Amino acid sequence: MNIPSIFWFIPAAAVIALLLAWAFYRAMKREDEGTPRMREIAGHVRRGAMAYLRQQYKVVAIVFVVLALFFAYLAYGAGVQNPWVPFAFLTGGFFSGLAGYFGMKTATYASARTANAARQSLDRGLKVAFRSGAVMGLVVVGLGLLDISFWYVILEYFVDVTGPQKLVVITTTMLTFGMGASTQALFARVGGGIYTKAADVGADLVGKVEAGIPEDDPRNPATIADNVGDNVGDVAGMGADLYESYCGSILATAALGAAAFASADGMAMQLRAVLAPMLIAAVGIVLSIIGIFLVRTKEGATMRELLRSLGVGVNFSSLLIAGATFGILYLLGIENWIGLSFSVITGLLAGIIIGQATEYYTSHSYKPTQKIAGSAQTGPATVIIAGIGSGMISTAVPVLTIGVAIILAYLCAIGFDMEHIMSAQSISLGLYGIGIAAVGMLSTLGITLATDAYGPIADNAGGNAEMSGLGPEVRKRTDALDALGNTTAATGKGFAIGSAALTALALLASYIEEIRIGLLHNGVTALDLPNGTTQLVEKASLLDFMEYYHVSLMNPTVLIGVFVGAMMSFLFCGLTMNAVGRAAQSMVNEVRRQFREIKGILTGEGTPDYARCVEISTRGAQREMLLPSLLAIAVPVVVGLVFGVAGVMGLLVGGLSSGFVLAVFMANAGGAWDNAKKMVEEGHFGGKGSDCHKATVVGDTVGDPFKDTSGPSLNILIKLMSMVSIVMAGLTVAFHLF
Amino acid sequence: MNIPSIFWFIPAAAVIALLLAWAFYRAMKREDEGTPRMREIAGHVRRGAMAYLRQQYKVVAIVFVVLALFFAYLAYGAGVQNPWVPFAFLTGGFFSGLAGYFGMKTATYASARTANAARQSLDRGLKVAFRSGAVMGLVVVGLGLLDISFWYVILEYFVDVTGPQKLVVITTTMLTFGMGASTQALFARVGGGIYTKAADVGADLVGKVEAGIPEDDPRNPATIADNVGDNVGDVAGMGADLYESYCGSILATAALGAAAFASADGMAMQLRAVLAPMLIAAVGIVLSIIGIFLVRTKEGATMRELLRSLGVGVNFSSLLIAGATFGILYLLGIENWIGLSFSVITGLLAGIIIGQATEYYTSHSYKPTQKIAGSAQTGPATVIIAGIGSGMISTAVPVLTIGVAIILAYLCAIGFDMEHIMSAQSISLGLYGIGIAAVGMLSTLGITLATDAYGPIADNAGGNAEMSGLGPEVRKRTDALDALGNTTAATGKGFAIGSAALTALALLASYIEEIRIGLLHNGVTALDLPNGTTQLVEKASLLDFMEYYHVSLMNPTVLIGVFVGAMMSFLFCGLTMNAVGRAAQSMVNEVRRQFREIKGILTGEGTPDYARCVEISTRGAQREMLLPSLLAIAVPVVVGLVFGVAGVMGLLVGGLSSGFVLAVFMANAGGAWDNAKKMVEEGHFGGKGSDCHKATVVGDTVGDPFKDTSGPSLNILIKLMSMVSIVMAGLTVAFHLF
Repeated sequence: MNIPSIFWFIPAAAVIALLLAWAFYRAMKREDEGTPRMREIAGHVRRGAMAYLRQQYKVVAIVFVVLALFFAYLAYGAGVQNPWVPFAFLTGGFFSGLAGYFGMKTATYASARTANAARQSLDRGLKVAFRSGAVMGLVVVGLGLLDISFWYVILEYFVDVTGPQKLVVITTTMLTFGMGASTQALFARVGGGIYTKAADVGADLVGKVEAGIPEDDPRNPATIADNVGDNVGDVAGMGADLYESYCGSILATAALGAAAFASADGMAMQLRAVLAPMLIAAVGIVLSIIGIFLVRTKEGATMRELLRSLGVGVNFSSLLIAGATFGILYLLGIENWIGLSFSVITGLLAGIIIGQATEYYTSHSYKPTQKIAGSAQTGPATVIIAGIGSGMISTAVPVLTIGVAIILAYLCAIGFDMEHIMSAQSISLGLYGIGIAAVGMLSTLGITLATDAYGPIADNAGGNAEMSGLGPEVRKRTDALDALGNTTAATGKGFAIGSAALTALALLASYIEEIRIGLLHNGVTALDLPNGTTQLVEKASLLDFMEYYHVSLMNPTVLIGVFVGAMMSFLFCGLTMNAVGRAAQSMVNEVRRQFREIKGILTGEGTPDYARCVEISTRGAQREMLLPSLLAIAVPVVVGLVFGVAGVMGLLVGGLSSGFVLAVFMANAGGAWDNAKKMVEEGHFGGKGSDCHKATVVGDTVGDPFKDTSGPSLNILIKLMSMVSIVMAGLTVAFHLF
Repeated sequence: MNIPSIFWFIPAAAVIALLLAWAFYRAMKREDEGTPRMREIAGHVRRGAMAYLRQQYKVVAIVFVVLALFFAYLAYGAGVQNPWVPFAFLTGGFFSGLAGYFGMKTATYASARTANAARQSLDRGLKVAFRSGAVMGLVVVGLGLLDISFWYVILEYFVDVTGPQKLVVITTTMLTFGMGASTQALFARVGGGIYTKAADVGADLVGKVEAGIPEDDPRNPATIADNVGDNVGDVAGMGADLYESYCGSILATAALGAAAFASADGMAMQLRAVLAPMLIAAVGIVLSIIGIFLVRTKEGATMRELLRSLGVGVNFSSLLIAGATFGILYLLGIENWIGLSFSVITGLLAGIIIGQATEYYTSHSYKPTQKIAGSAQTGPATVIIAGIGSGMISTAVPVLTIGVAIILAYLCAIGFDMEHIMSAQSISLGLYGIGIAAVGMLSTLGITLATDAYGPIADNAGGNAEMSGLGPEVRKRTDALDALGNTTAATGKGFAIGSAALTALALLASYIEEIRIGLLHNGVTALDLPNGTTQLVEKASLLDFMEYYHVSLMNPTVLIGVFVGAMMSFLFCGLTMNAVGRAAQSMVNEVRRQFREIKGILTGEGTPDYARCVEISTRGAQREMLLPSLLAIAVPVVVGLVFGVAGVMGLLVGGLSSGFVLAVFMANAGGAWDNAKKMVEEGHFGGKGSDCHKATVVGDTVGDPFKDTSGPSLNILIKLMSMVSIVMAGLTVAFHLF
């Protein structure tokens, strides 16, 4: 065993996060859940959400068992797979699902309590909602680092390799639990995303547009399903998603660190490079916790003050992690600690800029969204055109920002050594810098996720208030809390999408490392390079592999891979969009049927059959999530078998680039339509009930699956394709050898 | 001079095409233009279209003069540019514009004549419209091959290089006139696309939706502008566009052929490889002409018979060109003529499959579009969601088809020599195979473009019939002609987009050839490769350049290039979408103003101010086309200067892959929305005037800029970015040397 004592700080931070999450959860449970009507509605939502999650986990469990058996066969039967993969895969999936489950359980208990607290004051409501959101943030980072620590210790003990290869094997094995997390996250995002938007779109189309009743009106049979959807999509789905992002970035960076220093004389540095991302994450947890406690307001705070207090917490954590990184890397004794610290700062700055750009393109305080709202004067068609146009234009800033961040993180990591900018050593180190920039962006996830997760809680609290017939002032407060969350969430989204792009880049290098291990495993010890020289597999650089497999842009298989990768993003979005459309249509038909057949619903005398709507959404989501998800798993395997390493590299790059741009487009267009509608509802261009309003409702409805189903799922698609490729690298190598 | 006598067949075929076009034009002019009212309306449209084109050419001329002066400075001042570029650039632009001009002039004379002929019978209408469309097809291919022949002779005479480098210099210089054609085509497509959709969307929004008057109703002030738009967008824009595609594929393939056989002992083969694509195109012209004469119907033909007679012409030409290719390549004495002929067949098959897939996803005879129409029952939002979903899914077949075609064309060209599949020689030959596949697809453009171009003529004839108050039976006949065109146009679109992708791939290799010339021009004669060896620039293979410039997927600058390329497609579409939205909104406001201020318009007593609407569209299009077009020119230059060759290669691959997928998505979604609306208009789901119809009109309106502005412009964007990179290669090289 060679575990330095500083390592134990990592699981310690994880345990502290989990304990605090437990304490917040207990405190939330002690709050009063309000009137009997409030309890009843919250109970409906909670039972619906739990029933959905049970159903979802059943389906996903089957997929996991099948895949785990397949991996077990590859590992123990065909002998082309690392023997730890089946287990790592299962724990990754289990913990990812657990993070979503805890987050959702908390959210469903918290909504009525938030509404009740909001009856007293705005800041009481903020506290209950925010601390409940913090449960999710802390659970995600706590479980993530705990899982990482657990596997590190296990593998350190069991892996019987010695020398510099030991850490390489440990880290690349750990990386495969990322595939479990990605798979779980994809199902959670896609299934939850379809559920929530089928219910939302269905409820809006019949309720708001046809029957003319407001949102969350208890007369609308789909309204419980809509509220359940917020929980299963926006909470459980997001939890599993960010668990995957968080672990993925840490593991990819650790693997790059192990590979970059895999020489006999670099072993001390190698250990430090592996521990660095974990330690940054651990310190990030501590800073997040301090940040969470900084979020407090005085009685009767204004909206601006509330926003400020939330900002204080987030900014405090982000600023301090930037500073702390210098300390961590210095104390660890990493070579070029200053440069790598600046890589982290590059990542943080990129996240902030992307977040600001997101806000600019989606908030109705700025021109783009105002113009979309204005285009409603000429009807729904121009709203759609303007939203799509603006969303597409909004991709420019994030892409340029990520481009600059990639270059800067790379150059900082290699100490601006322009002479050897493309040497094999520089590339390894530069990619490590890119990875650690992603880790920096996600290190304060504990608090940024808290500000994100409390949005749906506030939203549900509003729904509860409306359905329970609480006064409009309570609804106004919960709306204010919701709007507050939307603003801070922009930064969180910038960090999430930015770090996904950087992590995916780092995973490209990890893929090659797995190919190296696969070759060695198959007894291939030397590569005959096209230039006539021979290179030992063990010593071959990333560039040697690029040459050996002809991964240049003149290779048709690389180009085909890029094409297929670009197509995958669109196909995946198309399938999920259609899934929402179909599921929403069943919902519309059901609500119309109830309006027709159950007497007195609209006068408030009859009770709608809420459960039937919940069931329709559940069944629709389960049926529809399978095809796109299985496609995401199957395509990289098929491309690997048919086109080999060059094709896979093309696939990943094509998927990453198009997927990133498409994800930004869809998220921003959807967000802008949502806020354009809110702007009209605030009284511009005719206000609620006007033709303009109806036109923006069409935009908002189209935007729903854009921003909450297809867009966010793309993030995971990109990384899942990388993870599948990595896990299947052994199979690809073996298949092309024999 | 070393011009073989067979060469003269090429300009001869071009001249025959132009003479026949002239004959068809004269014959059309001799037809009767109908009633005074018909003449008057046709005159309005013709004057509006010509006024627009004059205005457009003025603006574009300024851009061309500025760019030509810049190239002249680079060539004669800075000395980093081939001295022929300014002239080649200008002629390319001039001929491309001329093709659009002739096509449009013919179309505007033909519309009333087609309507008048349709008063007599359906097949009289077909003949006038189709032969007028054929004018455009023949002018495009005739001018294209004439321009190519002209430059070939000039350069053969003036270029004072000897040995195998002579043909390399000639072909790469000719390639630069492609940039002129691309630039002209981009402005024509973007400007024309914005014009036509601003008018169309504006006319529909106020006319159909608000005032409830049918399409092409003379009471709608925007109706003349709408008909002008069909001419400037769908005719002039398409003409310039396909002129560029046609020349681009021939020139890129010739350049690849010259490079592939650029050794002292291969000079005979080199000449043959350069002439092969031109000869295939020349034979294609002859076959197209025969095909055009085969399109004839008997009196009283049914719709099915009409379709068959049109199909006979197209299929005859396509089948024969496949057969003729074997003969051409055999007689030329090209090595591996059988393999290369199969490359051409691969291309033709790919075009047909993409065309079929396009039809499946856009015709309402099939499920996808029927489902979009069905989703109208739940309102416009679900129509949009279903259209976007279906459009995104529709990208799968074309991408996979192109992927398979790339591989097969490559493997056929290298004779399935799997042992040396990635050798430097195989790559050159394989890329040549890919290029010649694209030439094969476009070789029968003379007739496929005729079937495409006659669509807008029939459409305008319908408009003329409606406005002139001809009976509904005439309108029914012109609608039938229009629908007929839509069906055959699907194949044409498949060929256009497929060949664009293949040509863009071939242009990647041409870019590297230009880099080689740039290096030699700057006195760099040897490359120090990263593996320590040195290679003469003159003898370096494409793979050597890939290594020298680190164009692998592990180079961050390549990855950034890919990101920026993907982003460019979205940004460009976003800008053009917004342009249409803005211009349409001015149109809506103007029409509303006229309805309000000019008394008696809706009762037919007042005359609308058509000219004012034409002017608004013209000004809008001119103002809006500049930014996206200039961006497409500037970005490759900037990427080249900042990131060098590796960044440019990434940019081109990223732009090509995302642009291709995005273009297919937008074209198919737009086409499907259009036909979903037509399906409802035919009486399904409530028929005309129902809520379902209104919902599909929203879809159709959103689809207008998708399929007629942004989507088709992407094709040119992809190739223009390649062309700019090629033309600017000298500057990139010089900038990074000093």
